[in-house]
Amino acid sequence: MPAPQFPTPPAAAEPLTVMGAGLVGSLLSLYLARRGHSVQVIERRADPRRTGVQEGRSINLALSDRGWRALEGVGIADDIRRVGIPMYRRVIHDAQGQLSFQPYGQNGQAIYSVSRGGLNQALLDLAEADERISLRFQQQCRHLDLEQRRLHLLDTATQQPHDEPYTRLFGTDGAFSAVRAALQKTDRYDYSQHYLEYGYKELNIEGGPNGEWLLEKEALHIWPRGEFMMIALPNLDGSFNCTLYFPFEGSNSFAALETPQQVTDFFQRVFPDVLPLLPDLTGEFFRNPTSSLVTVRCFPWAYRDEVLLLGDASHAIVPFYGQGMNAGFEDCTVLNQLLDEHGDAAWPLVFNEFQTRRKPNADAMADLAVYNFTEMRDRVADPRFLLQKKIEGKIAQQFPGHWTPLYSQVTFSHTPYAEAWANGQRQDQLMAEFMAHIQTEADYERPEVQALLREKLAGGAPATA
Amino acid sequence: MPAPQFPTPPAAAEPLTVMGAGLVGSLLSLYLARRGHSVQVIERRADPRRTGVQEGRSINLALSDRGWRALEGVGIADDIRRVGIPMYRRVIHDAQGQLSFQPYGQNGQAIYSVSRGGLNQALLDLAEADERISLRFQQQCRHLDLEQRRLHLLDTATQQPHDEPYTRLFGTDGAFSAVRAALQKTDRYDYSQHYLEYGYKELNIEGGPNGEWLLEKEALHIWPRGEFMMIALPNLDGSFNCTLYFPFEGSNSFAALETPQQVTDFFQRVFPDVLPLLPDLTGEFFRNPTSSLVTVRCFPWAYRDEVLLLGDASHAIVPFYGQGMNAGFEDCTVLNQLLDEHGDAAWPLVFNEFQTRRKPNADAMADLAVYNFTEMRDRVADPRFLLQKKIEGKIAQQFPGHWTPLYSQVTFSHTPYAEAWANGQRQDQLMAEFMAHIQTEADYERPEVQALLREKLAGGAPATA
Repeated sequence: MPAPQFPTPPAAAEPLTVMGAGLVGSLLSLYLARRGHSVQVIERRADPRRTGVQEGRSINLALSDRGWRALEGVGIADDIRRVGIPMYRRVIHDAQGQLSFQPYGQNGQAIYSVSRGGLNQALLDLAEADERISLRFQQQCRHLDLEQRRLHLLDTATQQPHDEPYTRLFGTDGAFSAVRAALQKTDRYDYSQHYLEYGYKELNIEGGPNGEWLLEKEALHIWPRGEFMMIALPNLDGSFNCTLYFPFEGSNSFAALETPQQVTDFFQRVFPDVLPLLPDLTGEFFRNPTSSLVTVRCFPWAYRDEVLLLGDASHAIVPFYGQGMNAGFEDCTVLNQLLDEHGDAAWPLVFNEFQTRRKPNADAMADLAVYNFTEMRDRVADPRFLLQKKIEGKIAQQFPGHWTPLYSQVTFSHTPYAEAWANGQRQDQLMAEFMAHIQTEADYERPEVQALLREKLAGGAPATA
Repeated sequence: MPAPQFPTPPAAAEPLTVMGAGLVGSLLSLYLARRGHSVQVIERRADPRRTGVQEGRSINLALSDRGWRALEGVGIADDIRRVGIPMYRRVIHDAQGQLSFQPYGQNGQAIYSVSRGGLNQALLDLAEADERISLRFQQQCRHLDLEQRRLHLLDTATQQPHDEPYTRLFGTDGAFSAVRAALQKTDRYDYSQHYLEYGYKELNIEGGPNGEWLLEKEALHIWPRGEFMMIALPNLDGSFNCTLYFPFEGSNSFAALETPQQVTDFFQRVFPDVLPLLPDLTGEFFRNPTSSLVTVRCFPWAYRDEVLLLGDASHAIVPFYGQGMNAGFEDCTVLNQLLDEHGDAAWPLVFNEFQTRRKPNADAMADLAVYNFTEMRDRVADPRFLLQKKIEGKIAQQFPGHWTPLYSQVTFSHTPYAEAWANGQRQDQLMAEFMAHIQTEADYERPEVQALLREKLAGGAPATA
């Protein structure tokens, strides 16, 4: 990989403030610093590298091409790839423990299971090593005065409140952003937070006695059960992070599982093959929190040329496409491109173009994430659906440039999300036409199927970007 | 009208707290007090009866059947009707000053122009006269502690902060509700605020030298111009309250009118007949605020059986159907009915049924209000649309019980809004079928039209509730 190129720092760069040292905030600070800006990063929590709170087995994330590109931009992609685990396919577990398989892409394409905590710490280490970046932890934002451009902070270590001015503020403080809360109080601010009627709970699949993986390692495992599902992603130590997505209320729900016996019986009935791999199931089930799943949409993302929201602060999505972090990282890529294009002094233009360009993509990604929940918990259990995915793979191979599956557009390309979503909806219609003539994989070769494919694909406009 | 009947007060009613002494809060306090509860009403602003801020020419509202029924429930409808002005029809002004007309209903049905301030003051007078109600003004809610059930208030007269406990709290504090802000911070709280790209500005049409009305008095006047519009409602003193609904940005917009000359030229071009009636047009235009138009949706409306939102606090809508106040008043009617049904001790059941029953209706009304904006600013200028409205009137007369126009269902009935909206959408489809055969009013009598009407209406299910 070529070394990342950055512009010569401007002679007298103004100081910038980044609120939030999570994944997007720490990456953004690196991008801004390498453009020559001095950056102050303010974080509510304690330094995770000191407290160790996120050490060891933390939640893992699925990194894909948009995320990699952003990490390559600051030269850290190779380091992270070495501690990530490629997942080449979905392994689908039915209620009898029978497996089926669905590759994510072609030619070794994979998404990568990485530790959220480990990735955050690697980015913070890089930021700390950059003399233009100062990191300040345990600084809670109590209030933000947009007119005076002042932050009212509380140092939670000393309990001392203090005020800080800012010139330009980047809000990367997550789904419950304090920066966004200030924007929300301005006139004509569109905002919505919408919760799924599902919660999630994390469980842990232990590794084997010699640290070996007890399920296929390089895969994302799904137990689709129609109205609910469980998934598992591999960790380096042989364990898997397992997440149950489950209704809050109803006959099969968190509310309905009140005793350890009920939990064990339920897992025995619906997830029999994984039960032996969950030694502390009932302990974890009642000890671990049941978390909720929110989609946040808002607009504008910018306040004058003084404040800009990025990442979950402007577009928190549900996790089912594995794109939350990737979308936030792509925000950094796009902002950096706009600064390349317009220069580091053109903040009004850059902020406005950023929000105009990214908002439709964030909205599309929010829709895609909900869409993929239905696919994962329900459709992947349908043999017809798996056949359709196989057929789609054949089409993509036969008509390169004319057909990129939706999943690949989202995961293995930089096609804007809104374009990918529109392409995917057109492809859905075409696939329905094709599948009307296809009952088995072999039918793909039938002359009338091939004729239809050529008519619809080779002659017409490409069904992908 | 029969005197309202209220249940015998329970022996030891618990004290209730109502946050907000606007239209809905003051009416709600009367309903609760007449059920035997002692009620404390807390209001952020000063008493409008003392300050006179809302005296004189204030914004007027359109009261219709849902509002009247709620006012009848506390015996104040006749008093208000005496100071309201019935509006029997829309008077539509085209760009040449030519008029056309569209009746609102049949048999003298009208909506009533009433003064918001006058109505609020009448309700406050009634509340003050009730010994079970205590009114406390200039109490700003700084924070609401749902767990401790405590209000953190600021007395804005003395600038003294103080705390107050509550047992049961009704949030009637409007579109920017402080009570709702506390609920929003609870987990899994669905919330959205969405602004139209239109703002509004109020202007004043003076009465004649002898206090006479210079436009038709008993009518709502509309100047529909496609992308924007102006409306006017009559006041008792001969004046009209005039409201311009106009894009914030664009070629015809508030942003584009920067000088008095531009404003005058614009009115001369698009509203020539009203320009002579606006003696202080440019003064008012630059002095009066440009206000925004928000739709607020949220859920749940209740927190345990301890807090309940009503009115704009739970469902703020845009003003184009004249139903904001009417919907809030209907909330009071429905809550009172549920207390009749389940008893004044069954708060958990009542709160839950209230939000379950009212939420779909509030959502439908929010949609209807946006729908009617398009109708008022655009469709009423289309002769085909006015012909369709005439035909619909004929159908309603010919098939009573089988066809109630959507506007009548919303305005002159108590049909739940969601049902009215669903009926209206079915009717839209039917009207499209009928109008395909109708070019003039006389075509209504053609045998094939009559046959189609009988087939679709007399034989089938009623197209209304």
